[in-house]
Amino acid sequence: MPIIEVSRSQDPTSDIFEAMYSLRAIRRFKPDPIPVDVLWRVVEAATQAASGGNRQPWAFIVMTDADQRRSFAQGIRERFEANGHLPGWREELAANPDPARKRMVTSALALFEHFDQAPCVIFPALHFPAGEALEGMAAGSVIFPAVQNLLLAARALGLATTLTTVHRVWESELREMLSLPDEVMPVATIPLGYPDAWFGPLNRRNVAEVTHWGGWGIQPRP
Amino acid sequence: MPIIEVSRSQDPTSDIFEAMYSLRAIRRFKPDPIPVDVLWRVVEAATQAASGGNRQPWAFIVMTDADQRRSFAQGIRERFEANGHLPGWREELAANPDPARKRMVTSALALFEHFDQAPCVIFPALHFPAGEALEGMAAGSVIFPAVQNLLLAARALGLATTLTTVHRVWESELREMLSLPDEVMPVATIPLGYPDAWFGPLNRRNVAEVTHWGGWGIQPRP
Repeated sequence: MPIIEVSRSQDPTSDIFEAMYSLRAIRRFKPDPIPVDVLWRVVEAATQAASGGNRQPWAFIVMTDADQRRSFAQGIRERFEANGHLPGWREELAANPDPARKRMVTSALALFEHFDQAPCVIFPALHFPAGEALEGMAAGSVIFPAVQNLLLAARALGLATTLTTVHRVWESELREMLSLPDEVMPVATIPLGYPDAWFGPLNRRNVAEVTHWGGWGIQPRP
Repeated sequence: MPIIEVSRSQDPTSDIFEAMYSLRAIRRFKPDPIPVDVLWRVVEAATQAASGGNRQPWAFIVMTDADQRRSFAQGIRERFEANGHLPGWREELAANPDPARKRMVTSALALFEHFDQAPCVIFPALHFPAGEALEGMAAGSVIFPAVQNLLLAARALGLATTLTTVHRVWESELREMLSLPDEVMPVATIPLGYPDAWFGPLNRRNVAEVTHWGGWGIQPRP
């Protein structure tokens, strides 16, 4: 049993632990638009994260235009049809896999079915000054704390999100649509909208299974 | 002016925005030990983060033993003396650099001066099942959201932290001290303690400088 327990809800919350413990990936959105000042709050919260040397090597591209969102949703759907992922998931589901796999495949399909319904998509990106780029894990370490702030702030304000990398199959088209300079690298695709599903308890391993005190496999003395 | 404003404080807070907006890197700690149940809350909050496919490929090694902490602090200090970083920073400081650089160098020196005072050090690590390892940015994307939850939960509970990678200069000794299996890779070194400094407002660029609406350089219509 987790230390903090949360109930299913669609409500905003200012409580940090309730936000963390109920931050489910949600793929079904109400069509209601998100007020611009709410989106500013979400992005500003992202920019409060630390980044090695306070470099702040990031950019956030916010897409709310209906035509852009439709083109993007259609673009990624076509690519995932063509690369075999969507047909494969449908086949797997029809074959009635074990419950854990079924949940995962159902979620993957739901993302593509409902993507257009999200009234906003945010693309967090790395944006280094010329000659200062980081790569690999170091690049991840300066952008994903900001991404987590973004997801938590959205949850706190009652917005559903899911952290994906689906832009990668349609990246050159997206770069052109958004006029991204070469040195800007999107790292995630995050649809946002008011939830047509529930925030609520997460499926995680017990903390004691992944925590080691002073050495591998050691638990604290009670 | 940021949307949320926060004051200097040493108090805990359950408010998610106050925690995000006041999460300064703090390198001066009171010697008071941290209750074990508080550390469990910090680590459990980390484990609530999303990870692609809900892999949860992580481990958290918590070091509170005074001898271990002293050995580690001494080990990294000696390496940073030997590799020239500490002598270089002292020289720079003596030469009275510009204010921004002075702040950065002072902070870097303070980390090593006060490291022993932190009553706890947590090493978040990647821990993949055999054959499933991710690398580079993908590896960063599955561990740094959890690291950010850890830092935010600590802040909420009134604990000061700073996100560093200083273990890298003493990694083989640390792996031996903690009996880490080969497939476990520490990604950060986070000292924790009650603050002997202030949480408070952060030095960040204005959100409008890094936000683009529907295309590079575009701002939303008012």
